[in-house]
Amino acid sequence: MKFSERVRALQSSPVRRLLPYAEEARAKGKKIYPLNIGQPDIVTPPSFLEAIRGFSQDVIAYATSQGNNDLRDAMSGYYKNFNIPFEREDIIVTNGGSEALMFAFMAMCDPGDEVLIPEPFYANYNAFAGSVNVKVRPITTKAEEGFHLPPREEIEALVTPKTRGVLVANPGNPTGTIYTRDEMDMLASLALKHDLFIVADEVYREFVYDGLQYTSFGHLPEIADRVIIVDSVSKRYSACGARIGCIACRNRDFMAQVLKLAQGRLCVPTLEQVGATALYSTPKSYLEEVNKEYQSRRNTLYKALKEMPGVVCAEPKGAFYVMVKLPVDDAEKFIIWMLQNFDVNGETMMASAGEGFYATPGLGKQEFRLAYVLNNEDLLKAMNILKVGLEAYPGRVEAAVAR
Amino acid sequence: MKFSERVRALQSSPVRRLLPYAEEARAKGKKIYPLNIGQPDIVTPPSFLEAIRGFSQDVIAYATSQGNNDLRDAMSGYYKNFNIPFEREDIIVTNGGSEALMFAFMAMCDPGDEVLIPEPFYANYNAFAGSVNVKVRPITTKAEEGFHLPPREEIEALVTPKTRGVLVANPGNPTGTIYTRDEMDMLASLALKHDLFIVADEVYREFVYDGLQYTSFGHLPEIADRVIIVDSVSKRYSACGARIGCIACRNRDFMAQVLKLAQGRLCVPTLEQVGATALYSTPKSYLEEVNKEYQSRRNTLYKALKEMPGVVCAEPKGAFYVMVKLPVDDAEKFIIWMLQNFDVNGETMMASAGEGFYATPGLGKQEFRLAYVLNNEDLLKAMNILKVGLEAYPGRVEAAVAR
Repeated sequence: MKFSERVRALQSSPVRRLLPYAEEARAKGKKIYPLNIGQPDIVTPPSFLEAIRGFSQDVIAYATSQGNNDLRDAMSGYYKNFNIPFEREDIIVTNGGSEALMFAFMAMCDPGDEVLIPEPFYANYNAFAGSVNVKVRPITTKAEEGFHLPPREEIEALVTPKTRGVLVANPGNPTGTIYTRDEMDMLASLALKHDLFIVADEVYREFVYDGLQYTSFGHLPEIADRVIIVDSVSKRYSACGARIGCIACRNRDFMAQVLKLAQGRLCVPTLEQVGATALYSTPKSYLEEVNKEYQSRRNTLYKALKEMPGVVCAEPKGAFYVMVKLPVDDAEKFIIWMLQNFDVNGETMMASAGEGFYATPGLGKQEFRLAYVLNNEDLLKAMNILKVGLEAYPGRVEAAVAR
Repeated sequence: MKFSERVRALQSSPVRRLLPYAEEARAKGKKIYPLNIGQPDIVTPPSFLEAIRGFSQDVIAYATSQGNNDLRDAMSGYYKNFNIPFEREDIIVTNGGSEALMFAFMAMCDPGDEVLIPEPFYANYNAFAGSVNVKVRPITTKAEEGFHLPPREEIEALVTPKTRGVLVANPGNPTGTIYTRDEMDMLASLALKHDLFIVADEVYREFVYDGLQYTSFGHLPEIADRVIIVDSVSKRYSACGARIGCIACRNRDFMAQVLKLAQGRLCVPTLEQVGATALYSTPKSYLEEVNKEYQSRRNTLYKALKEMPGVVCAEPKGAFYVMVKLPVDDAEKFIIWMLQNFDVNGETMMASAGEGFYATPGLGKQEFRLAYVLNNEDLLKAMNILKVGLEAYPGRVEAAVAR
């Protein structure tokens, strides 16, 4: 039997494919600081489990394909608080941000159509695009420039008759970059000129540091009919395992297309929707405290990285990741070596290899992504392990090579 | 902005698209017997909610992409009890049977590749196939023949160089048909000859009546490496809203492809997996009682239908649906008329229009699907309403026209 080319061409997840090495190391008794995956250690608001425990219907029945109205109303209220004018009808609940992205790709693009994405980007964008034959055209951004966008002409040169949209994560994963209002206006103007959608992955909307002004793509009225927001409770409320997200757009014709996809898979789990509805009543102070905690972790991590010889990285301004250029021959080899051959008093650390976050072949080979999802004390230990590991690694090179 | 052709071409769900008419009727105070959707009224085993209520971790974290090992082991145990030799490694947990079908289509087929499916079939197969550009080639079956398969030559004539597999639901939805061992051997022989996968949607495996012998495609060792089982707890344990299913296959290379898709969407909800694991410990007596109840409902429904002049249907032998040919001009018009213009003492009934279950244009226009998911008393009331409605309907024709 033949397997499909589209799936054979998919890389396995750079975040998850090194897990067997970690399991092996753990089996040998090593302790690992897992900075590879965006799984926060922050406690989920207890209202999630409380609401689910209170669920008392005898039959665990299908929900509506759009999602529970209670949840959609809660989401609508959340957006309005953020000055994003989404009504219930503008929102379809999805299985995490993942399904929202799949729906967006399928509803915008036929096979062979193209989407522009600033790279490095969340690696699973490749999986979503590839599995439905959407072509990713990367807009390359650089650590040295804080991963901000290149000039307009450079982006415009990538637009072809097959381009259907631009997908941007803001705040960025894996970069931690927050786009300026000027960058957003530039993208909006390009979208209007070339009749493109803007898919805005804003799952880290609350994770913005240093008092920086944050603009959502939902704030730009001139492109309201072409902005598709992809969202999730996973990071906001540290509820990654709930798998509740949404796709939201004020273009009702577009949402009618998405609804057909939502009807196909029937619905999102009934109980998780009950829990997620409760999450949206979490007091603002929770998010503020979480923000403060991550900002402090960011400071810890960035300070430690800056002190390591040969390491290059931009200070992340949002989300909870940092892309780091290392003085090594190959970042993936280095990660595996750290798991297999290295420890400090029985402890080591883990990251995600950088190449999987780029679409352009060859880029990211010296980079890895760190997720600062551990407390400051553990982060300091992990950074010390990294520092000593970099010194001891046989594949060390003089300094991170400029691309 | 353009919407994609693939999604624009999707029909809205025939099971769900008439819901607005039902809502309108309910708003006017009508009571509706909902035989349109396979949402059983059977109580979900309480172990599901109990297990979830007992979940006490502080962080609702991601699960592994394959699914929890506890759940995969429970599923493996279930299959082995059924003499289907699936190990944990042969199973990936999915968001209901729906996602399992999507994964199967994507991993087997590139755009333009074809899958043979006996029609009438579960309408969402069209949505799954269409959204990833897989072409459905229908194998037409007929009510008069109990929706059994046509001769081998007729099926073989549909195979082209682009055919990648055959998708069969057994027991059938919407037909209630159970394939004979001869039919299954014929499909197995075709699959071997033409190097095809067999995707077996067996979510109604326990819903087989009249003491009929049931064979799973997992029971045929000669095609073990090309059988992909699609499964779900939805119907088996009346837990449709849990959205837990699986894709299972003994071809490890194939499962490695599916794993890439599973990694892309990260995981299935953590809590639902805890609940579903408990479901697999449900005593066999639960399934036996459910089977008895549905068999009794089937008897009630079939007897009433046979007594209606001009109505044609085959006695369903499994699942909980029946496809009914009606003496009407257009079954969808009839359903809408029943909701808008008809009632017996303030009560009416609802079905799903037949056309959406066929891929061949024009077929199914006089048919609708009934789901016998209500108790016998309610079914009798619904059948009386149908009988009187058919007599009163202005678009009544002499008898169901043979196709």
